[in-house]
Amino acid sequence: MTRHFIIDCDTAEDDIMSLFALIKNGISVEALTIVEGNISYEQEINNALWALEFIGKDVKVYPGSDRPLVKPFRSVEEVHGKGGIGDEIVKPSKLKPENKRAMDAIVELADRYAGELEFLAISPLTNLALAYLKDKSIVDKIKKVWVMGGTAWGRGNITPVAEYNIWVDPDAAKIIFNAGFDITMVPWDVIVNYPINDELWNKIKSMNTKMSQFYIKIYSHYRDYSMKNEKIGGTPHPDLITTSIAIDRSIIKKSERHYVDIENCDCLTRGMTVIDYLDLWKKKANTEVVYEIHFDKFLNLLFDLLKWF
Amino acid sequence: MTRHFIIDCDTAEDDIMSLFALIKNGISVEALTIVEGNISYEQEINNALWALEFIGKDVKVYPGSDRPLVKPFRSVEEVHGKGGIGDEIVKPSKLKPENKRAMDAIVELADRYAGELEFLAISPLTNLALAYLKDKSIVDKIKKVWVMGGTAWGRGNITPVAEYNIWVDPDAAKIIFNAGFDITMVPWDVIVNYPINDELWNKIKSMNTKMSQFYIKIYSHYRDYSMKNEKIGGTPHPDLITTSIAIDRSIIKKSERHYVDIENCDCLTRGMTVIDYLDLWKKKANTEVVYEIHFDKFLNLLFDLLKWF
Amino acid sequence: MTRHFIIDCDTAEDDIMSLFALIKNGISVEALTIVEGNISYEQEINNALWALEFIGKDVKVYPGSDRPLVKPFRSVEEVHGKGGIGDEIVKPSKLKPENKRAMDAIVELADRYAGELEFLAISPLTNLALAYLKDKSIVDKIKKVWVMGGTAWGRGNITPVAEYNIWVDPDAAKIIFNAGFDITMVPWDVIVNYPINDELWNKIKSMNTKMSQFYIKIYSHYRDYSMKNEKIGGTPHPDLITTSIAIDRSIIKKSERHYVDIENCDCLTRGMTVIDYLDLWKKKANTEVVYEIHFDKFLNLLFDLLKWF
Amino acid sequence: MTRHFIIDCDTAEDDIMSLFALIKNGISVEALTIVEGNISYEQEINNALWALEFIGKDVKVYPGSDRPLVKPFRSVEEVHGKGGIGDEIVKPSKLKPENKRAMDAIVELADRYAGELEFLAISPLTNLALAYLKDKSIVDKIKKVWVMGGTAWGRGNITPVAEYNIWVDPDAAKIIFNAGFDITMVPWDVIVNYPINDELWNKIKSMNTKMSQFYIKIYSHYRDYSMKNEKIGGTPHPDLITTSIAIDRSIIKKSERHYVDIENCDCLTRGMTVIDYLDLWKKKANTEVVYEIHFDKFLNLLFDLLKWF
Repeated sequence: MTRHFIIDCDTAEDDIMSLFALIKNGISVEALTIVEGNISYEQEINNALWALEFIGKDVKVYPGSDRPLVKPFRSVEEVHGKGGIGDEIVKPSKLKPENKRAMDAIVELADRYAGELEFLAISPLTNLALAYLKDKSIVDKIKKVWVMGGTAWGRGNITPVAEYNIWVDPDAAKIIFNAGFDITMVPWDVIVNYPINDELWNKIKSMNTKMSQFYIKIYSHYRDYSMKNEKIGGTPHPDLITTSIAIDRSIIKKSERHYVDIENCDCLTRGMTVIDYLDLWKKKANTEVVYEIHFDKFLNLLFDLLKWF
Repeated sequence: MTRHFIIDCDTAEDDIMSLFALIKNGISVEALTIVEGNISYEQEINNALWALEFIGKDVKVYPGSDRPLVKPFRSVEEVHGKGGIGDEIVKPSKLKPENKRAMDAIVELADRYAGELEFLAISPLTNLALAYLKDKSIVDKIKKVWVMGGTAWGRGNITPVAEYNIWVDPDAAKIIFNAGFDITMVPWDVIVNYPINDELWNKIKSMNTKMSQFYIKIYSHYRDYSMKNEKIGGTPHPDLITTSIAIDRSIIKKSERHYVDIENCDCLTRGMTVIDYLDLWKKKANTEVVYEIHFDKFLNLLFDLLKWF
Repeated sequence: MTRHFIIDCDTAEDDIMSLFALIKNGISVEALTIVEGNISYEQEINNALWALEFIGKDVKVYPGSDRPLVKPFRSVEEVHGKGGIGDEIVKPSKLKPENKRAMDAIVELADRYAGELEFLAISPLTNLALAYLKDKSIVDKIKKVWVMGGTAWGRGNITPVAEYNIWVDPDAAKIIFNAGFDITMVPWDVIVNYPINDELWNKIKSMNTKMSQFYIKIYSHYRDYSMKNEKIGGTPHPDLITTSIAIDRSIIKKSERHYVDIENCDCLTRGMTVIDYLDLWKKKANTEVVYEIHFDKFLNLLFDLLKWF
Repeated sequence: MTRHFIIDCDTAEDDIMSLFALIKNGISVEALTIVEGNISYEQEINNALWALEFIGKDVKVYPGSDRPLVKPFRSVEEVHGKGGIGDEIVKPSKLKPENKRAMDAIVELADRYAGELEFLAISPLTNLALAYLKDKSIVDKIKKVWVMGGTAWGRGNITPVAEYNIWVDPDAAKIIFNAGFDITMVPWDVIVNYPINDELWNKIKSMNTKMSQFYIKIYSHYRDYSMKNEKIGGTPHPDLITTSIAIDRSIIKKSERHYVDIENCDCLTRGMTVIDYLDLWKKKANTEVVYEIHFDKFLNLLFDLLKWF
């Protein structure tokens, strides 16, 4: 049976490979919705279209929110490069974004594929929150929300305790985690345990497929930044690991269901995911938190993708 | 030249008279949008339709948000009665709400009447904030936003320092006050200085028009509550005074332009309007704050309305 | 019967005249305690000693806290001049501060004059809060706490809604207002209604007493600043009006008793005094808020002081 | 060379054994200061004196603060029993607490043993914060502050992310961590990895020394609570592990120096320790965070203590 996905992006390198992974694995990507995040909003749209041109696919790209609901945020060009795939600024030559807004597209697709639609959020949750605020019935129509975001053990990247996607729009995240969706969350401080180390990186370099060359090109900036600044022994793949889990949930080795809430105050811990691991608050579990993955399975999926063409 | 209005309501007694005042004064009410607030959301919709049936007008009623963007809120049936016009629960017999959402209607009407549309918010600002988050261009298309809300001297009603409309959704209010709209704000602690006292109330009672009887019926609960609990010497008319100013801005006796921001923390002062009256923050004035009105002019408008039929 | 006072200062011009007023009016000033505030801590101590030398009195000066309990603060040399009495930096020639800390002196004096001691806080409330945290029994021993601080109508000076003394240490203020003291509070936005205007200022100038010359000298900077930046039609006397009320409470024309709490969040409204004027919180009144004074009585007291010598 | 300690307690079972461990290991305990926390303040004092009588030692016990600086807190009788050593309420028969306040004793002892004094805080940090607010020079006089508190990986006990000691008075903790002390912090989510499991518990039971019987008696309630509610496979020893490290720092297996700050907002994450593990804030490291210990060494110390008499 065909699976129907919306992929919500702040399109940098790892978002692009996530999109490719969905398509390569036979998932019907009904929409690509763009949200504020990693780099300039315009470039995020351009990157999405440019990536679709690269693989020759015409997925509809819907611009959405270019800012969080309430609070200011900042983009992180230092992490992904000015262009989000390094410092190069790319442009699509043919494809164009839709006029319809992301939130409207989400509501409509939730109607069309009610009970089947899956939402892959490798991004701040503003677009999904706006769709929800417009039409709460999407909670029952969207089968699954996969979230790259948050931390399992309070080890963040944009602040000591907050992960970037949740931090960008903690209000949207608070809305979504408390809305009743079926959420699986893949935390930052989990994925840092599964980097593409030097050996794997060199193996990819020597593959010499068009896709492997593309991969090396778009990840180099991110790899350098992460290894230098985040104590990670290689390239991290927050989005692609989340996507891989969405494609094949047997990649999860260990997960637990807990009530997760979001710290949305303007304070030291803004944007932190609070996991009620001892059930102190006696609230219904709303999230499956992924703690460990089968790295070999992820690598199989990655290398299959790199051999695509 | 015809003026085009959207009126945004949490439909209790004073909202209803505000709607009537617009229509009586020849303003083209393009939409009535409903938002969370005073009473149950469903009854707010019913009240709007029921009021339109009373005056025999078919204005389109668009349901919008039934909750604030982020924070929880509470309705205030103790103030307006269970039905919002006292404890009676009324229902429309013919009219029905639209399927289109308020936020979409606002965006469309802003397009249609670009440069002419006026938005009368006698309500929490959630609907307008959602319309803005969907399409920021409405800032330039909406000519004026009239807001009943906030305080001029830190004297609130729902908390010691916060007025109800702003308190219900301080996040929405923060978004709207910082978005660039041309705002005139009529604060709660200004309108309490202009109550319908016993003499005026009795004068209305003795008018014996259909409208004056309707007025007495729907305001009695609110009048009792306000005089008993809010140290006001009669019925307050926050919405109707704001509407009167929107109809005829010469009703303003004294106003000042300042930068106004909203306290949206979860704290003692949540929902307070902060007026930078000394320009300490060196920010561009975003709001005309009304401090005094010509009460006689307001009374003329009110009594004209009560003589309508 | 002799009245026994502690005066707590962040010694600028108005603090000095307050000290003089107490002494001139026969009050036994048992201690002068210094707290962080207007200018550099060291200069606050020097000013106190220098002022005592000027009138030839040897009141004990106890250094206390040079910082708020928890939050950072800033001094306001732009208001009072670098030296607190304008830009001149003065030094005492003979007198020296005590070694004992202010908090210990407060606890000891509360013991010695139990039931009679009055505390005049024309300053942030850090010293008193520390004394209280050390020994809660001072609540019952201190007969009265006179506070220059806060706002009655949300019109501040250091932020749009916060008055400086409370804003400097909102945590200390929160502790004190909730501790059970008998507090009379004289708000900033009350005292701005009673400035020394040009006519009075010139009258003082022409008095040619030693004290009037001293007054003109130490207030000139403050007067200029206030008239230029705070929309006040003359020199404000927050401390001296409070002190005058403490000396002769018949100077109060209108006051009300309410529950007052302090906003101590790190937010827009930090340091605001929240007056529960409608008794919404159903808490016991803890403060007499002064709303109006008999200005003529205050002026009599001031001119008596200026004629001292 | 004799080591001089102050031990700051909210005296429950683990505090008592910590006190015994210090004395058993030849450390000169100059003072036992009591602070708000686990159980009723009065019982905390009684427990301390009762424990001293049990081992026949007369250490001076100074009452200090019975409340946090600013925020309300709650005690946790459900964890330690009504008496803090289970539900039994014990009383000393001979010993009495000092009249001098803890904060004064700390300041005086810091003077007396300047450069040598060590402060063992197995408790909220209110007393130390008050001593510091009274006299900042103690920062340079106190050689070391050992803190049982906080979390290393955001896994708390009183809330999902906050450990009890820090949560009780996050303002005091914020003051202390930013004051410049040489701090070693032993987090809750570290010590849970080193429980006294059933095998060890039974071994202690069979020792039949007076001390082992005492141990079994006072820890039974805590053990039951922790195993049932906190997913710990035995009795946790937060205080005693911290004390053991203070006695013999070679018990530390792994530690890192970082800047640690405290979340003191009134929000979801109140009382959380924020460890800047990536040096994102570019602030000077202020804390040695203990991540792993040599459990065998700790057990040696514990069993030595249990064999004392």
